[in-house]
Amino acid sequence: MDRTQEVVDRILAGDVRIAARLMRELDDGRPEVREILKELYRHSGRAHIIGITGAPGVGKSTLTDRIIQYLRQEGKTVGVVAVDPTSPFSGGAILGDRIRMQRHALDEGVFIRSLATRGHFGGLTASARAVITVLDAMGKDYVLVETVGVGQDEVEIAATAYTTLVVTVPGMGDDIQAIKAGILEVADILVINKADREGASRTYQELIQMLELQGHRKAIAWKPPVLLAQAKDNEGIEALMAAVRDHQEFLAQDGGKALQLARASRVRQEFLELLREGVSRRLVKQLESDGRLDRVLTDILAKQTDPYSASQALVLEMLGPVKPMA
Amino acid sequence: MDRTQEVVDRILAGDVRIAARLMRELDDGRPEVREILKELYRHSGRAHIIGITGAPGVGKSTLTDRIIQYLRQEGKTVGVVAVDPTSPFSGGAILGDRIRMQRHALDEGVFIRSLATRGHFGGLTASARAVITVLDAMGKDYVLVETVGVGQDEVEIAATAYTTLVVTVPGMGDDIQAIKAGILEVADILVINKADREGASRTYQELIQMLELQGHRKAIAWKPPVLLAQAKDNEGIEALMAAVRDHQEFLAQDGGKALQLARASRVRQEFLELLREGVSRRLVKQLESDGRLDRVLTDILAKQTDPYSASQALVLEMLGPVKPMA
Repeated sequence: MDRTQEVVDRILAGDVRIAARLMRELDDGRPEVREILKELYRHSGRAHIIGITGAPGVGKSTLTDRIIQYLRQEGKTVGVVAVDPTSPFSGGAILGDRIRMQRHALDEGVFIRSLATRGHFGGLTASARAVITVLDAMGKDYVLVETVGVGQDEVEIAATAYTTLVVTVPGMGDDIQAIKAGILEVADILVINKADREGASRTYQELIQMLELQGHRKAIAWKPPVLLAQAKDNEGIEALMAAVRDHQEFLAQDGGKALQLARASRVRQEFLELLREGVSRRLVKQLESDGRLDRVLTDILAKQTDPYSASQALVLEMLGPVKPMA
Repeated sequence: MDRTQEVVDRILAGDVRIAARLMRELDDGRPEVREILKELYRHSGRAHIIGITGAPGVGKSTLTDRIIQYLRQEGKTVGVVAVDPTSPFSGGAILGDRIRMQRHALDEGVFIRSLATRGHFGGLTASARAVITVLDAMGKDYVLVETVGVGQDEVEIAATAYTTLVVTVPGMGDDIQAIKAGILEVADILVINKADREGASRTYQELIQMLELQGHRKAIAWKPPVLLAQAKDNEGIEALMAAVRDHQEFLAQDGGKALQLARASRVRQEFLELLREGVSRRLVKQLESDGRLDRVLTDILAKQTDPYSASQALVLEMLGPVKPMA
């Protein structure tokens, strides 16, 4: 039996040690790792992926912790990918938090993998998606993807989950306006955490109003609920998980039509990202190997051309004009 | 005279109204806008670009505000690009801050443009670079690029400035560890803001130690200084700007060798980003127009293939293997 198949079989059987090693090797870009991922991908697609995103400081990690706890009590297995430098999972938070999280480290039904946004220039999205695939193939019932709601890649990773939670806190003031711009659109469920703080009911009203405006524009069948929670005190978690279940049922109704759409959109995103990455790598290799990259850069620096013209010309040269259907 | 040339001439002459309109139109992707950018690019390259990055809450915007004030007092013109949802420039901060910033709105020597990270999925980096080009071509002496030090794209935009300031605050504890992972490497100058807070001297010692470790690894000629500041009280700004001047002089010495290297690396980054974007757009158009994208996605969903294999095959089909130098 070859090594690829052996690793694949062990991970499918839930071997935590082998899975952890593969995840560490993901960024190497070695062909073997890619072969293993290909196999694992075909065994993925069963986990329910939940995205958890929001501004720094809203308590995403504590909420994630409570969701893990809830799901474990229900007997579900859980994988966690944290793409958040302020997350205790990723090593960015205060020690107390980190110790609190470690209780899950001894639980075989939970697998946590963190990716720091810093230091992963260029490969964060691909790495996160690969880790999700591995956790899914391992047979986890749920995969939680916690990302900080600031960078565009980070928001997008959470947005392509099947159920996306957007977390906010009362009284963020103008931040609510900022949320409107992009993050609200990706929410399947809105959570106002730290709901004991002043201004919770005003924030609640504002979010409801914004959702109504959005509902008129988008004509979607699912109406995102707005929920109050105090993750620190484990309050509001049952109602939140009931909403997650409602959303899962919504996705599954009519023979799973909505789930299929969500899956298709997820696959499209993943495929196009890989295609872009592959094409870029291939292009740069070509341009470096025949010395063209250096020549183009020299011309741009000498103001003989500009990056816009040079890239346009090169795209046309390498790919030609768009050809109609054969 | 055609419209492109007219717009270009007006912007080169510093017409704020026309420049503002062009910046609003940047995201449209219309061919005229691209033509204008091409022309402007050839007139860019004179501004000193300063990147300002760091975690949310460290006071980047207040520091940016103080730097603007300092440079204006020196008689320099300033352009600002804020890519930070927590920045008052981008509309994410409390009202008081925003009003404080507006004093610059009446100053013709300052031009501020903000880009929200949210709501700009897919085009943030390109938009930010284009705005920098416009401000540079307008003849601004300095272009300040404020980005939140969280998302990978956001950090990279600041990192490709000529002088990059990384801002932190005392007592971020484990966050210092997180900084080590990626952000420290992009710093030309480190600023400990809110230096009246407890723990400033410990943070200072830690940063100095980390820089020493890094210095051994990288063997670089420029040793990033660590500076204390209280931007709110306008303290430490003179020393900071002296360090910026030192760095400018460092870049200019030996006939500007280091500056040329920084410029070349900046141009390389910008060109490759545009190339990737152009190739992706062109590829997706092709794949959609001949129906191949739908077929591939259907196959992936049916587990007939996986995104890794499918993207690899497609890259090979469209671009062939890497050809050696002609």
